[in-house]
Amino acid sequence: MSDAELDDRTASETRRLLDFLTTVGSGDVPEAVIHESKRCLLDYLGVTIAAADEPAVTIARRQYEALGGHPQTRALGTSVRLRVTDAAMVNGIAAHAFDFDDTHVPTILHPTTPLYSAGLGLADWLGRSGLDLLASHAVGYEVGARASLALYPEHYDAGWHMTGTTGPLAAATASARLLGLTAAQAAHCLGLAATQASGHREQFGTMAKPFHAGHAASAGVLAAMFAKEGFTAAPDSIQGRRGMFAVMSTRSTVSDLVDGLGDRWEIFRNGVKPYACGVVIHPTIDSVRQFREKDGVSADDVEQIELSVNPLVVELTGRLEPRTGLEGKFSAVFACAIALIDGKVGEAAFTDANVTRPDVRALMDRIRLVPDAAIDHTKAVATLITRDGKTSESRVAHASGTPENRLSDGDLAAKFHDLVDPVLGGAQAAELEALTWRMDELADVAALMSAATPLTRD
Amino acid sequence: MSDAELDDRTASETRRLLDFLTTVGSGDVPEAVIHESKRCLLDYLGVTIAAADEPAVTIARRQYEALGGHPQTRALGTSVRLRVTDAAMVNGIAAHAFDFDDTHVPTILHPTTPLYSAGLGLADWLGRSGLDLLASHAVGYEVGARASLALYPEHYDAGWHMTGTTGPLAAATASARLLGLTAAQAAHCLGLAATQASGHREQFGTMAKPFHAGHAASAGVLAAMFAKEGFTAAPDSIQGRRGMFAVMSTRSTVSDLVDGLGDRWEIFRNGVKPYACGVVIHPTIDSVRQFREKDGVSADDVEQIELSVNPLVVELTGRLEPRTGLEGKFSAVFACAIALIDGKVGEAAFTDANVTRPDVRALMDRIRLVPDAAIDHTKAVATLITRDGKTSESRVAHASGTPENRLSDGDLAAKFHDLVDPVLGGAQAAELEALTWRMDELADVAALMSAATPLTRD
Repeated sequence: MSDAELDDRTASETRRLLDFLTTVGSGDVPEAVIHESKRCLLDYLGVTIAAADEPAVTIARRQYEALGGHPQTRALGTSVRLRVTDAAMVNGIAAHAFDFDDTHVPTILHPTTPLYSAGLGLADWLGRSGLDLLASHAVGYEVGARASLALYPEHYDAGWHMTGTTGPLAAATASARLLGLTAAQAAHCLGLAATQASGHREQFGTMAKPFHAGHAASAGVLAAMFAKEGFTAAPDSIQGRRGMFAVMSTRSTVSDLVDGLGDRWEIFRNGVKPYACGVVIHPTIDSVRQFREKDGVSADDVEQIELSVNPLVVELTGRLEPRTGLEGKFSAVFACAIALIDGKVGEAAFTDANVTRPDVRALMDRIRLVPDAAIDHTKAVATLITRDGKTSESRVAHASGTPENRLSDGDLAAKFHDLVDPVLGGAQAAELEALTWRMDELADVAALMSAATPLTRD
Repeated sequence: MSDAELDDRTASETRRLLDFLTTVGSGDVPEAVIHESKRCLLDYLGVTIAAADEPAVTIARRQYEALGGHPQTRALGTSVRLRVTDAAMVNGIAAHAFDFDDTHVPTILHPTTPLYSAGLGLADWLGRSGLDLLASHAVGYEVGARASLALYPEHYDAGWHMTGTTGPLAAATASARLLGLTAAQAAHCLGLAATQASGHREQFGTMAKPFHAGHAASAGVLAAMFAKEGFTAAPDSIQGRRGMFAVMSTRSTVSDLVDGLGDRWEIFRNGVKPYACGVVIHPTIDSVRQFREKDGVSADDVEQIELSVNPLVVELTGRLEPRTGLEGKFSAVFACAIALIDGKVGEAAFTDANVTRPDVRALMDRIRLVPDAAIDHTKAVATLITRDGKTSESRVAHASGTPENRLSDGDLAAKFHDLVDPVLGGAQAAELEALTWRMDELADVAALMSAATPLTRD
């Protein structure tokens, strides 16, 4: 496919995206955007390294070891070497295993997981610079987030898991940049990624959910490798009559693909999770933590808490009796109960033991979820009735970690160390953090990968 | 997940399929069904071995060699050894590269390509018997075809490529059997396959179309390997509220999953292609060949031919000016022109040279496609007006190779040798054919794989 054929056969919005992703140099990405990509990298390394021993991750890693492959890069948090496509899958599963990875707030896409799961391994294998990796993340974030904006919410409402569907486009973009694809090759690459878009919301609460994220990353890498060698896809894979948008959504606003492209960066709407569970529960957790922290309320004081939330929150996280820690991540009443009792809602909160703890269960029984379509899914209103009959209210307009209520770089580092120190030890974790903040100065990503590898662990 | 949990959380139709696929022994499959699976195998080997040098296949094969892996099985038609997931992808791309592989006629699913691309490699690697392989095909055919029946035509009309969407369920079923999964493991396996369902019809006419078939095969193998080691998916991945059927189709008739299961075998509705192009063109080719063979009509006699066909045929194969041999497979007027002039419409007909041949183009200009919703997509009516002003008609109710107008075992073997003799030589091809017919006696599939490998070719 020549550039002229691209002009002729590819819709103009996709065509502009292809130009953008193949012509913006790493040095052209604004410094503030690069800093956001560093923040995303630090958060990614934390959630991924900490999940290296999760069952979903170890099963995948061992199956890929049984299948074999050239030792091109690493499974993060272990010393296992895998080929790039497998590392993309394993690291993608790990990054999303705790549901603790970052989110493009307007669309609930988890952008960084497919992006760095694809990009880190490729950059490591190919010896690319830290700045090239960061820029591939920033540009890939744009493509993934904008495709998600074009489809949200109809596509998501139909039952698609955004990270599995637009995640491949993001991962393919990052991979296309690191492999140096031309615009025509990138068209085939995005086409191969688009036609691998998959992942149903039925899988939420099972290992298949993080599998979607790993698949997105791996599909993106493979798409770029194939396209670079001449594998073809349809010139209008995204916007064509039988293409991704038409087939997978009842509506798409294609202007979202390009409006303000290069001026307004979607990465500034990234959300980082302070709590290790579905992002739609975060406002409710904040609302309950306000009772604890501002008013000194304890579980014994609670007669009842009513949580007014968007109906989506009930749909996604309405589990009343989670049986496992994983199911607990989809239970607003559990997360709020543990928040009030223990004060911390990090990964360590979501254990099988905690979801059946008698004190937690007893409080859960006194917390009610009330759907209210007038309340946006980013907000929550909690109404507390205490045992002595008083009523008070706590409102959350923007949860901690959202763009309007950002975590500082220091907050991010604290989350990182909570997750990584137990795996790498404090000293090595500090070294890895320092390397991440000066990632744009690294000539080769390999130095970061070494620092992310525990000394004594397989 | 225990069997009791399965009963509780999986819809009854899926539950019955799970029982069927895990409890029907290889020896329980009726002999006539096993014979059909042999016919499918012979046809599969022909189309796959002959496509080993196609660009889509060589690109994929070389990329997997660059990625590496244990040499668990083979890329058919070459001496290259690949790991099972990669061989599934490469052989799946090859089997569908010519669009010459078999079809479940009622749904346009290409069942055998994902089935044997997954199963042959696994059986070779694991040292399974020929009968186990054949039975895995037969049972997997049921699951893939029945899922397709449940969704057809709404799912297909929405723009999904059936082989990419229900193909993974078929491949996962065959893989689950060869790996010996329990019913609970098989539930997770089918779930992982369902949630990888993908592939848009926009890709028709590009390398991404056979990629869908390869992806289906590879996804099925991976799903079974992961599920066997404990990887989980949703218990009701297919029929659940946010599962495959609900998300990917506006309608599904779930009774199709199980009606007559084990009594009526869908494999008897398999179609084998005598012509190397989209199956919906076959009735038109037969109709034009009747003019040539019964009436002795040649191109010079033709003033005009009008082909009345279902509108779907126009939509899928309405290209009037194909520019490549591959595009020619989606051009009814090209296929009919070459059928009338050359008489043969095998793989050798679809070359870049043929689609621009002046005599072919001249005849194409005199052939018209007329959509007529009253005509089923399996039928065609051709009306010929000759230069001397006579009008005649030829009607095709069932194209050659359909269940109602079956190719004999001898016809099948002739197609096989047309395809394979140039690659393996006649003697080795004859040996491979003979092995295929007594596949159910082979203790180990490896013998077949050796016979399918050329002696001097990489």
